[in-house]
This record gives sequence, C-alpha cells and structure tokens, in this order.
Amino acid sequence: MQLAYNLAKKGCGGVNPNPLVGAVIVKDNKIIGEGYHEVFGGPHAEVNAFRSAKESVEGATMYVTLEPCSHYGKTPPCAQAIVDNKIARVVIGMLDPNPLVSGRGVRLLQDAGIEVESDFLSAELSQMNRVFLKYIQSKLPYVIMKTAMTLDGKIASRTGDSRWVSNEQSRAKVHELRNELMAIMVGLNTVIADDPILTTRLAGNKKGRNPIRIVVDSQARIPLESKILNTPDEAKTIVAVSSKADTAKISQIEALGNEVLFIGEKNGRVDLNDLMLKLGEKGIDGILLEGGATLNYAALEAQIVDEVHAYIAPKIIGGHAAKTPVGGEGIELMKDAVNLQNIHFENIADDILVIGEVVY
Amino acid sequence: MQLAYNLAKKGCGGVNPNPLVGAVIVKDNKIIGEGYHEVFGGPHAEVNAFRSAKESVEGATMYVTLEPCSHYGKTPPCAQAIVDNKIARVVIGMLDPNPLVSGRGVRLLQDAGIEVESDFLSAELSQMNRVFLKYIQSKLPYVIMKTAMTLDGKIASRTGDSRWVSNEQSRAKVHELRNELMAIMVGLNTVIADDPILTTRLAGNKKGRNPIRIVVDSQARIPLESKILNTPDEAKTIVAVSSKADTAKISQIEALGNEVLFIGEKNGRVDLNDLMLKLGEKGIDGILLEGGATLNYAALEAQIVDEVHAYIAPKIIGGHAAKTPVGGEGIELMKDAVNLQNIHFENIADDILVIGEVVY
Repeated sequence: MQLAYNLAKKGCGGVNPNPLVGAVIVKDNKIIGEGYHEVFGGPHAEVNAFRSAKESVEGATMYVTLEPCSHYGKTPPCAQAIVDNKIARVVIGMLDPNPLVSGRGVRLLQDAGIEVESDFLSAELSQMNRVFLKYIQSKLPYVIMKTAMTLDGKIASRTGDSRWVSNEQSRAKVHELRNELMAIMVGLNTVIADDPILTTRLAGNKKGRNPIRIVVDSQARIPLESKILNTPDEAKTIVAVSSKADTAKISQIEALGNEVLFIGEKNGRVDLNDLMLKLGEKGIDGILLEGGATLNYAALEAQIVDEVHAYIAPKIIGGHAAKTPVGGEGIELMKDAVNLQNIHFENIADDILVIGEVVY
Repeated sequence: MQLAYNLAKKGCGGVNPNPLVGAVIVKDNKIIGEGYHEVFGGPHAEVNAFRSAKESVEGATMYVTLEPCSHYGKTPPCAQAIVDNKIARVVIGMLDPNPLVSGRGVRLLQDAGIEVESDFLSAELSQMNRVFLKYIQSKLPYVIMKTAMTLDGKIASRTGDSRWVSNEQSRAKVHELRNELMAIMVGLNTVIADDPILTTRLAGNKKGRNPIRIVVDSQARIPLESKILNTPDEAKTIVAVSSKADTAKISQIEALGNEVLFIGEKNGRVDLNDLMLKLGEKGIDGILLEGGATLNYAALEAQIVDEVHAYIAPKIIGGHAAKTPVGGEGIELMKDAVNLQNIHFENIADDILVIGEVVY
C-alpha cells in the first residue's frame, strides 16, 4: 500500500480535480504490475497497472489507494475492469469520499466474488488528497494561504521592498506548490506593487504547470499593462470584479485575452465566498493564495482558507509602517485569534516553514 | 569533560558575573570528586571538587572546564590549590578568555611539574559561558532580545491585547531565562501598557532569582504607581533617564526605593550604548531585553543586541495597526536586513522558538 501511495503521488499536478491514485498488482509475492493516475482524462491507476503487467493478472491481489470507481465518467468503471481481469483480492486504502458512490465499487467487486479488504492508510491518503476531498464534498476549492515574513513579522520593508524575504530554497518550494494547485490568487495591490507573472518555475528549469491566475479587483482597477493580463499564452487569467467595475475597462481586459468574472459584493468588495462558489463551478479544486495583508485578512474573515504555509526568514527589518502577512481590521482579543491545528514544521536551510490547518 | 560541562551548567543563574565552571577528579579510572561553581563569591569548582573527594587526590587527574585561576579574587587561586593537593595531571576545557591572565594558570601548574592538557569542548563551553565571555572582554552586558509573536507577526492585537501570544510552556521557558540573566530591560511603553512586575516564576513554584529591572524612560514619565517601582523587596529597579527628566519626579522614584541612572542622550532619547556602558560598570553582565517594538528597534540600531530568542505561536490575529516585535523607522531594503547566524530551532508544543546570534 505504501508503494501504491508513492505511485499516486507521482500524479501530483496533473490530475486535478481528480484524486491522486496509485495501484499495485501482486501475484505469488511478486509485484507484476503498477500504475497511477497520471493525467486528468487519462486512464485511472488500475487500468495503468493492468497495462504494465507483463504476465497474467488472473488470481492476483490488487492494492489500490482509493476505492475503484463504479460509474462511467471520462473512462469506464475500474471496478468492472478488475472483475474482467479476474483479480482474486483487492486491498483498498480509502473509500470513495463522495457519499453518493462510496461503497458501490466495493459492492460491485464483492458481488463478483472478489475478496475485498481495507488497509487504511487513511491519514496519509486523506492528507495527500485533501484538495480533492474538500472539492468533491463541497464543490468549493481548497485554499492554501502562503505567506513569507521576517523574524519580526514583515512581508516587506517600510519602502515596500520584498526581494527577498525568504531564501532560494523556500522560493523554489513555493513554485512546487504552484505546480500542484490548479489556481493562484492575488489581490489588486500585489499586482500594482510587484507586477508578478505568477507562473511556475521549477528547479533545474523543469517545465511546470502554470496555475490559472485569479486577481481580486472589485473595481477593475488593474493596470492594462500588467504582465498577468498580457501573457494569455502562459496561463489563463481571471479578474474577479463586482458590479462597481467600469464596463469599458472590462472590455479592455477581455480584449487582451483574459476572463472577467462578476462576483457579488460584500462590504463594498468582491464577496470571497461567492467567488469560491463560482471558481468551484469552473472546476477549480485548489487555490494558492499569495495575497497581501488586506486580501489575506479578508480571506480568513470569509473562512475560505483551509491551510496556511508560513515561511519565516531569520532576519529583522523593523519598521512600524512595514506590512505584515495579515492586515485588515484585525481581531480584537488574542484569545479569539484564528488557530491552526496539525502543525508541521520544516527547516529550509535557515528559513522555517510552518504548515497548519485553519480551525474556524 | 562532558561531565564537568554538565556540572558547570548547574551553577546557571547563581554565579554571574562569574563564569560557569565544573570540575571532576579521576583516579585509577574512577571519579573520586566533582564540583562546580555554585554561587557568586562562593568556592570555585576546583575547590568544591576537592571538598567532595572521599579519598586522597594525590596523583589524580582533574578535568576542569575553564583554566584554573592564578590570582587572588574573592577566593584564593585555584591553580595553587591544585598544586597543593598534588594533582598529577590537569585537562582544561577552555583557556581563561581574559587576555591579561590567559595562560597564567597553565604556567603556574606546569611550573609545579603538573602535566597540563587541553581537551577543547570550546564550542559548547563558549556557548555556555557566552554572557561571561562578552562581559569579561568588553565590560558590556550580553543582551538577549526576546520576542513573542503570532504567525502573522503580531505581538498584540489591534487593541493591545497580548494575553497570551505564546503558550504556557514557552512562557515558562522565558522565566528560566529571567532566572539566568542578571537583569531584564523594558521600555516605558511596556510599563504603561502591561504594568509588569518582571520577576521570575519557575515551574513547580520553585523560587528563582529575580533579575534587576531596568526601565528605559528618557523623561521619567513612568507612573509612580507602577508595580515595578513599588516592589523593591522583590528586585532592584533602575530607571534610565536622560537630562530631560523632571527632578521632582526623579526624587519621587527614588523615594520609593528605586535607582535612577542618568544616561547621555542620542536623538532625543536615552543613548543605549551609554546605558550599556554604565550597566556594565555596575557589574551587570547579561540583560534580557523584553522590549516593545520601539525599544527593540532602537536596541538593534545601537547594535547592543547579541542574541535573539523569537517565539512564534501558530495563530493569526490580523490587524494593520497591530504591533510587531520590531518597529521604529525600519530598514529601507530587504537586502540590508539584520541577519542572524548559528540559528537554532526548537518546538515548544505548537510554538516555535528561533534562537540566533545577531550579525552586524
């Protein structure tokens, strides 16, 4: 099962909004086939495992990280393929999280006389597929808020200089996250301040997948010369505006090859909950939020953030006017602060990365 | 030598401004005596080791973390005691850092025909005695800046609420530091905001040593009802003022049993370099700086901070107006930020403690 889990991970970045799945076929204590879900729309892990097998799989055991599907989607049901291939025993890492189909794959297998067992690696598997799990159950994207600050809590100097807060290895790690998640979101202030392109640059000049770029910009005040609006060949850009936005400006943004999304308003700004709903409808299952202080606070207030990745660099810049990762109005009392759970620490050279799930 | 090092550590909090020293006597591969410098003014480690010996130490080997002293101070010279006790061989962890006496102890021993060896645990020993080492060489106190912030860089909420940022275990660890260092320093703003007593409360109601309390308060605006001014039986309080301070107010502060120290002025405030000089003259070898944003920045600017202990709690409070650990004007460019070196990370339950030495 551990091998199947490792295989599943290889699909990272290619399969959204599908889950990561790995499968291993064992016969006479020997691995005779293995596969994983490699790309969205492509064959599932089980089918790839069958294809890789160099000998007959009849009577073999299949280890698969997720319950085999029992319905026709982009591909025929895997549970049926398992029956057709005369597999004798299936060990499943995790049931299908979709309550409407959960257990059906198991039943189909059992009805065909196949022995089904559970070898729950569920903590690891849920963790690996957390984006898929939220999305399949809520149709809302899983949001990871990424911040980078100095040891005195600043994301930039008093003059706005932010090159660089975290070290090279930390920045490379963020690009891996861009590669894994389907979309990246920033606010208008970040576009104005940094004019970022928000594409993925992996180590060793490896080509990554560029995330869909989302700019939260109620009044469509984004400069038309912004890189993000003029690189439609790199990745799609969606500008989320409210009804306040100027129609002529919207047409100009669209004329450059970008999409404008009209979102409901809340407190005079784009309603982030409505935005998540609409992005979910578009099939976006996960978002990397690289917001500034204002957007980050609004996102936490709207409770759309699922996970925080906070990079901390061992340097001090000072400045009472220098910006911090989360601004906005702020919470009144320390006891009411937003807490994180399942906290994980990592040293990245001299930087620290703190990862935690948000508790609302 | 490792045992001698461990023994030395036991003196922590009791011997300042003396160094921590441990000694072990070995004869026929058996430990026959051990001792450490327990309290300032009391016997040195070597003497305690002799006193603990249950058999004759003649011909034995002594392991001692620091070169034995060769001069008459509060106690007679240890090197002479070693000669008188007919020790055959001495293994020294570190030479005396005071260049005026370094090597004299060794020479006294060698002249008496004792074999002297060096078994340098110097990294560990320098680390353990870093307060002593700076003080003995510069007559300036070693300053540790301690901060506690949320994962979004705040030391308090927008309303100033700071109870609590870090967890109970982290706070307990800070009290251990108060016990170890001779003095604690805050600014006027902290006294006004929190009215702290700044005494040491160790785990299990163990009685610690209260540090001397220093308040940086150029104009002597400290409220006369402050706890820190009305608890002279708990610990001494020194209020550092400039020539701007009101004479009547100063007399009132003194009348409560506190000391007022006149310090030169720099940019209209207490000159922190002059303050360090005067505190060093008073025999204060180490200071725990628990300043607010303004004093912390001033201290870094004046380059008086040697080491930073930054506690980070996995919670988010937000607020563009909430205070951060280091304020002041701030540095202009990220590349000119104050860096830390020899960084050490520690998890304290879900908090993180980052310790580093300041590089100027």
